[in-house]
Amino acid sequence: MPIDINCDLGESYDAFITGKDEELIDYVTSINIACGYHAGNHTIMHQTVRSAIRKNVHIGAHPGYPDREGFGRRNMEYNMTEIYDMMVYQMGALQAYVHIEKGTLHHVKPHGALYNQCANDKEKALAVVNAVYDFNPQLILYCLSGSQMEMIAKEKGLQVYEEVFSDRRYNDDGTLVSRQEPNALIQNEAEMLRHVKGILTTNEVLSVQQKKIKVAAQTLCIHGDGLHALDYAKKIAALRRQLQHN
Amino acid sequence: MPIDINCDLGESYDAFITGKDEELIDYVTSINIACGYHAGNHTIMHQTVRSAIRKNVHIGAHPGYPDREGFGRRNMEYNMTEIYDMMVYQMGALQAYVHIEKGTLHHVKPHGALYNQCANDKEKALAVVNAVYDFNPQLILYCLSGSQMEMIAKEKGLQVYEEVFSDRRYNDDGTLVSRQEPNALIQNEAEMLRHVKGILTTNEVLSVQQKKIKVAAQTLCIHGDGLHALDYAKKIAALRRQLQHN
Amino acid sequence: MPIDINCDLGESYDAFITGKDEELIDYVTSINIACGYHAGNHTIMHQTVRSAIRKNVHIGAHPGYPDREGFGRRNMEYNMTEIYDMMVYQMGALQAYVHIEKGTLHHVKPHGALYNQCANDKEKALAVVNAVYDFNPQLILYCLSGSQMEMIAKEKGLQVYEEVFSDRRYNDDGTLVSRQEPNALIQNEAEMLRHVKGILTTNEVLSVQQKKIKVAAQTLCIHGDGLHALDYAKKIAALRRQLQHN
Amino acid sequence: MPIDINCDLGESYDAFITGKDEELIDYVTSINIACGYHAGNHTIMHQTVRSAIRKNVHIGAHPGYPDREGFGRRNMEYNMTEIYDMMVYQMGALQAYVHIEKGTLHHVKPHGALYNQCANDKEKALAVVNAVYDFNPQLILYCLSGSQMEMIAKEKGLQVYEEVFSDRRYNDDGTLVSRQEPNALIQNEAEMLRHVKGILTTNEVLSVQQKKIKVAAQTLCIHGDGLHALDYAKKIAALRRQLQHN
Repeated sequence: MPIDINCDLGESYDAFITGKDEELIDYVTSINIACGYHAGNHTIMHQTVRSAIRKNVHIGAHPGYPDREGFGRRNMEYNMTEIYDMMVYQMGALQAYVHIEKGTLHHVKPHGALYNQCANDKEKALAVVNAVYDFNPQLILYCLSGSQMEMIAKEKGLQVYEEVFSDRRYNDDGTLVSRQEPNALIQNEAEMLRHVKGILTTNEVLSVQQKKIKVAAQTLCIHGDGLHALDYAKKIAALRRQLQHN
Repeated sequence: MPIDINCDLGESYDAFITGKDEELIDYVTSINIACGYHAGNHTIMHQTVRSAIRKNVHIGAHPGYPDREGFGRRNMEYNMTEIYDMMVYQMGALQAYVHIEKGTLHHVKPHGALYNQCANDKEKALAVVNAVYDFNPQLILYCLSGSQMEMIAKEKGLQVYEEVFSDRRYNDDGTLVSRQEPNALIQNEAEMLRHVKGILTTNEVLSVQQKKIKVAAQTLCIHGDGLHALDYAKKIAALRRQLQHN
Repeated sequence: MPIDINCDLGESYDAFITGKDEELIDYVTSINIACGYHAGNHTIMHQTVRSAIRKNVHIGAHPGYPDREGFGRRNMEYNMTEIYDMMVYQMGALQAYVHIEKGTLHHVKPHGALYNQCANDKEKALAVVNAVYDFNPQLILYCLSGSQMEMIAKEKGLQVYEEVFSDRRYNDDGTLVSRQEPNALIQNEAEMLRHVKGILTTNEVLSVQQKKIKVAAQTLCIHGDGLHALDYAKKIAALRRQLQHN
Repeated sequence: MPIDINCDLGESYDAFITGKDEELIDYVTSINIACGYHAGNHTIMHQTVRSAIRKNVHIGAHPGYPDREGFGRRNMEYNMTEIYDMMVYQMGALQAYVHIEKGTLHHVKPHGALYNQCANDKEKALAVVNAVYDFNPQLILYCLSGSQMEMIAKEKGLQVYEEVFSDRRYNDDGTLVSRQEPNALIQNEAEMLRHVKGILTTNEVLSVQQKKIKVAAQTLCIHGDGLHALDYAKKIAALRRQLQHN
């Protein structure tokens, strides 16, 4: 099966527009829809669900911390109960639009600080996994490849997509280079395409120490913001299509 | 069938505590749970759903305008699409907890300014009715008795509970005395019990002009705030039980 | 004195970017800074105040309704006390940055629905005027030219700048064509420049009925959003400079 | 000079009422007014400033994290710039009401997680100290007695009130027993009064290990919530008055 390409959508609201949702959706196979806590709102959620169904891409919930001011990227102190409850709230709200539009909810991908904290924090990861499982055990959980959350989700019996990123560099041990480091992001187009091609063909990427390392991935995340987001999305989609036909 | 007695619950969050939820729930037959827009949040919603199932009272969604600052009581300008979408969002969020706790969502009662505006505004009422119907046509819509929303809901084929209030006075024509008027509220216990007894036995109340008028009602709303809320709730519950056994 | 050209700035926050603030500020003589209620926040407010002082443009407070979701454009029901208090809060917050950066607060321009409602609603206008006067009677109030607020402010003894718009059409009686009308906005560049030139030279514009009408104005508002905002700003600034030198 | 007794006020908004503000204010000498981020809003801020001036108690700003959902008690990740800017915003907003009502702003006391983090985190403490100093170097900063923030404020040249608590237990080294510990709080009235008496007379309290330890304090915090808050406030005020007259 060719790799899934996912992108975060539906993060705008009213005058606050982020991303070129209507164009990006044509170059991915699944989308993660913000659920009103860190971004998005009832109007854009409904519109985005409609778009996704019309364009036949997989719909995922993209729940985050209730911190719109910080776009859900700020670490916040929540206990397991709170995380469980905020996951259920956001999945439920998105599911309602999917139900009304006669679509299917395909996956869940936590956003920002919640996603990152669940990669290493077993308690938070368990809260997320339990919430998804109790809400709908058929949902696929998108997890950072090699994370604690991936392990915990598999133990619970949830289907997992291991996720890699089109624009992030890796260490020799397969972990992501921290965003604190100056070389965390791939910002050169040629390198990015080489990096993605490695993921799509041999499951290998070059680490920052120039070592070939294996990466397991069922889904590849591309970013919808940034000056060249749409252009990169097109090239990655073309690359994927080309490999699929070979 | 004896009349349903409903009450708004789950309006607290964190340090902001309103009402005596855990005690009130023992004296009603259905509750309306705030859905995080005008009041409540993911934590209190989940707790309240659990209480309701344990105590075997009917669970209703209590969606309102996204105006926590004004407790959803302030008129705001929303078009039909926005109202439809915010209804779906809030019902979906609550439904998720009901689903996880293996309960059943029984009804929907719009809150505050939304409820009041839908009593007279056909467009807003239609948006609410459509949202409930599309989300789940089995749900019962609680409507102000004699309102536009009641009529529109019935036309659509939704089941309706006509609602009356334990502490509001009525005009000769069966409409509520406006809250702008000094005598809108019944604040005397003896009068309130007489008023409720009329509703429960003969479907009649005394208007402000001291005329006996008919009121149709399948549900009676009692208020959870106010100094004597709990005391009144007990007396109304006792009255209802007594009439039921006669 | 050549006419003041004002523009709303500082409406972004975090991932939600609106407008090209850093470029636009070079082509105006005064800016209106969002104060955290309908848009903006503490970080962008401070940055924008610093920019304004560095670039020597007049600083104004741009208070609005506490409705970020609706960008302060939605009518909401507030009484005079609430409007007075929310004005004071927002002016105070902005004034603090101006004070710390050793600048001067020059004016106040209410935003969106608050601005529009104050054009016709005497009570709301009075609440705004009183708040500005009590906070600092030296501040200039930007008012829709010919509005109730203008009259009330003058009676109170506040200095007023009558405001006109670079991209709005006028009726024969000097009122703005309602935004509900299809021809409310001037979207053609040549017409817009002709319209602005009339304002800058003869205080006359062509009404929609093609009649020459007088407009009084001490300030001209240009909009920072829209595809051509920056381009138009440059052309209007050039026009103003050119007329000033003649 | 007899010790200052302070209390947090103005934390309610609309239907969300916390504390008995109007009664408590009679038993303290200074109040800390919530500034709209973690609690309070423009209406209650204005009212509380008016009360304080009428009752002649010192007015302090009580800025917190923008986390109303968590009542500002949740640790959040903010950098120094953000903390500086959010301090300035909140002090500015409160100062505006004080100015309009012709009062004087006396002090600043950070709230909840911000207060606690600044006790140990030098960077955050410095951001707070700089914000207060730049805003108004005459303001007194209320600091946990013995904290990093106290030291940094003194170095900067700010006047400091060292703060102790009427209901918290202390370790042998003079630090507070962590709230994680079961014995962090004094919940017995007799012990609490003994504890307060030690603070007011000999500057000594009994540690949890029953050792007499010195505590330096220019202000004593009493809590406005809790079942017995008002009763305790009265007794502490009486104790203070009695000692003052001896």
